[in-house]
Amino acid sequence: MKIVLVSFEAITALDVVGPYEVLSRVPGAEVVFAGPHAGPVRTDNRVLGMQVDVALADVPHADVLLVPGGFGVDALMADPEGLADLRRLDRGAAFTTSVCTGALVLGAAGLLRGLEATTHWAYLEQLADFGATPVSRRVVRQGRVITAAVVSAGIDMALALAAELSSEDVARSIQLAIEYDPEPPFAEGHPRSASPERVARVRAASAARRAARAAQNQACK
Amino acid sequence: MKIVLVSFEAITALDVVGPYEVLSRVPGAEVVFAGPHAGPVRTDNRVLGMQVDVALADVPHADVLLVPGGFGVDALMADPEGLADLRRLDRGAAFTTSVCTGALVLGAAGLLRGLEATTHWAYLEQLADFGATPVSRRVVRQGRVITAAVVSAGIDMALALAAELSSEDVARSIQLAIEYDPEPPFAEGHPRSASPERVARVRAASAARRAARAAQNQACK
Repeated sequence: MKIVLVSFEAITALDVVGPYEVLSRVPGAEVVFAGPHAGPVRTDNRVLGMQVDVALADVPHADVLLVPGGFGVDALMADPEGLADLRRLDRGAAFTTSVCTGALVLGAAGLLRGLEATTHWAYLEQLADFGATPVSRRVVRQGRVITAAVVSAGIDMALALAAELSSEDVARSIQLAIEYDPEPPFAEGHPRSASPERVARVRAASAARRAARAAQNQACK
Repeated sequence: MKIVLVSFEAITALDVVGPYEVLSRVPGAEVVFAGPHAGPVRTDNRVLGMQVDVALADVPHADVLLVPGGFGVDALMADPEGLADLRRLDRGAAFTTSVCTGALVLGAAGLLRGLEATTHWAYLEQLADFGATPVSRRVVRQGRVITAAVVSAGIDMALALAAELSSEDVARSIQLAIEYDPEPPFAEGHPRSASPERVARVRAASAARRAARAAQNQACK
């Protein structure tokens, strides 16, 4: 069972590492980090270095395809060859999934047309640009296409997916093995429970970081 | 504010990436991945490649020191120079912290003597070997020494730490930014809520994986 985790420059690390920690524990799973190019990348804040082991073009097949988010999705969405590879892998996959703004990449590849989907709450409306119906839920499943909201939602999605790929018994044991028994210190993990001022501030900060990163990339060209 | 995340061969990725995703968002934080040796490492299942950017010996100071877990702690606990570096960095640190079996490394370095501490539930009793009092809680704080239980507990700890390093307001915004609003699919994220059979099975599987990894490392010498 081949699980392809898409990885790229300016990825949000936890978007992919949360599901990785779950899915790599599924018996029989062969997990590979694949991206537009093989080689080292740095995450969205340029601090953590991660390795992309194989180019998407060299991946013949995926049983599970997972696209995480991060500022790097902008480049991925503007990469016709990368999007074509994702479409090719999607055709053979039992599950095509995304975490956070990875949903925008699936959308740009045309894989969310006519489906309900979710993404980072600050980018939710953008899903409509790709013919999808934005839904404000932590995990949205439409047949074999599953989208998860921000960052930590990828862990929830991966556990549900592990139950499908193997068994609920296995998924329960994985949840225990990683002691996923969260106790968030604050009650503001979602816009619905945070003050409008905080939501506006976090939204603005995210947009500013994204713009700064884009400007920096432009300057480096 | 220098935040040193310790990284090493056979690390558990989520132990360090969870806190990283939180702490790297604290204003003014400078996060660095440091380990016994600079260079590439592979995580506990040898799949994900991560980069260690600097050797611990070359890190002059840490305001926050964080030691994650994984099978690789066995090698770290047997590395007198690495442990000496951790003791040196601890002396100048405002906070010394661990996630999962990273607590065993702090223990081996003599940094938990006389303190209450926690770690992965399957390794909890081992803390007593280092003069610590094992406590079955998700996060245990003893002054400036904070230990977190398994994997995902590192996110909870890091959010609490972000509040101390900056402000509760900042920590609340970070929690919203990563949408840490977990909905675990099952109620068995902790031994207290799982069946004794499942606990025994997961404990045995963890011990078997650890032994296999140790045998493999021995064979590679």
